[in-house]
Amino acid sequence: MAIMTFKAESRLKDGLSVESTAGKFTVLMDEPETLRGTDTGMNPVEMLLCSLGACQCIVARLFARAQRIEFEEFRVELEGDLDTDGFLRGRDGLRPGLSEIRYTLHIKTGTSREKVEDFAAFIKKRCPVSDVIVNGTNILQKDVVTET
Amino acid sequence: MAIMTFKAESRLKDGLSVESTAGKFTVLMDEPETLRGTDTGMNPVEMLLCSLGACQCIVARLFARAQRIEFEEFRVELEGDLDTDGFLRGRDGLRPGLSEIRYTLHIKTGTSREKVEDFAAFIKKRCPVSDVIVNGTNILQKDVVTET
Repeated sequence: MAIMTFKAESRLKDGLSVESTAGKFTVLMDEPETLRGTDTGMNPVEMLLCSLGACQCIVARLFARAQRIEFEEFRVELEGDLDTDGFLRGRDGLRPGLSEIRYTLHIKTGTSREKVEDFAAFIKKRCPVSDVIVNGTNILQKDVVTET
Repeated sequence: MAIMTFKAESRLKDGLSVESTAGKFTVLMDEPETLRGTDTGMNPVEMLLCSLGACQCIVARLFARAQRIEFEEFRVELEGDLDTDGFLRGRDGLRPGLSEIRYTLHIKTGTSREKVEDFAAFIKKRCPVSDVIVNGTNILQKDVVTET
C-alpha cells in the first residue's frame, strides 16, 4: 500500500466565481453568462473534462516506453453532455451531472494501428481520473463548520 | 430536454506537463517531482478536487435563495486518497484512481444548524461534478486519429 492523499480548497468569490487552490497552484472558475455567471473562467464541468484529458496525456507519457510505443505528439479532444433541466431545475429522473463523456485521441506516431489501439485501451484503463468517472468514487462529507 | 455540450482539449507538452483548454480559458497541469513531473502546475487529481469544490461553491450560490439560506462566506476543503501501487504499478485488485474523497464545508452564516445541514445535503445531491463522481458517467472513446 502506497496511499497518497491529495488536497484542495475552493472558496466562493463574487457572484459565481470561485478560486480553487492545491498546494502553491490556484485556478479560477466561473460560469458563462448563459448559466448566470460572469465568464471570468471555465466552469467546473469544463475543468473536469480538462482534468480527464490531462490525466490521459500524462498516462500516455508515463507508460509509453513500457507499452512499447513512441509518439511525437499526443492530444485529446473531449466533450460531455449535461441536461440543464436536471442541474438547474432538479427535474425528476434527470441527473444534474454529465450523462456521457466522449473523447478522441490524436497521436502523431509511426507505430502500427493495432499497437496504437492497444495503447489507447491501456490509457483508458489506467488513467486515475477515468477510473473515478467511469467507476465512481464515494464522496464523504466529514463536517459542516459554521461561524457567524 | 435542454442538453448543453461542454468541450475541452488537452495537449501534452514537455515531460508530464499538459495544457488544457476550454473555450478561451487555458490551464496548465503537471506532476510533482515525487510522481516524475517537474511541478509546474497542480496534477489532474488535484484539479478534479478543485473542480468538485468549485462546483459545490457555485451550487451553493445559485440555490441559496431558493433554499432559504443566507451566508457571507462559503469554502470547501477537499482531500482524496490514491494508491500509487494501483496507478503506477497496475497491481491487481487496486484501482488506479481515488478510492475515497472527503470534504468539509465552512460556511459563515447566521442560519440555524438544521437548515445548514439540509443545505449541505442539497448541495451534495444537486452538484453536477459530485453526481459524475458518485454515480459514475460512461466515457466513450469515439476515435483514435493517427498521423505520421
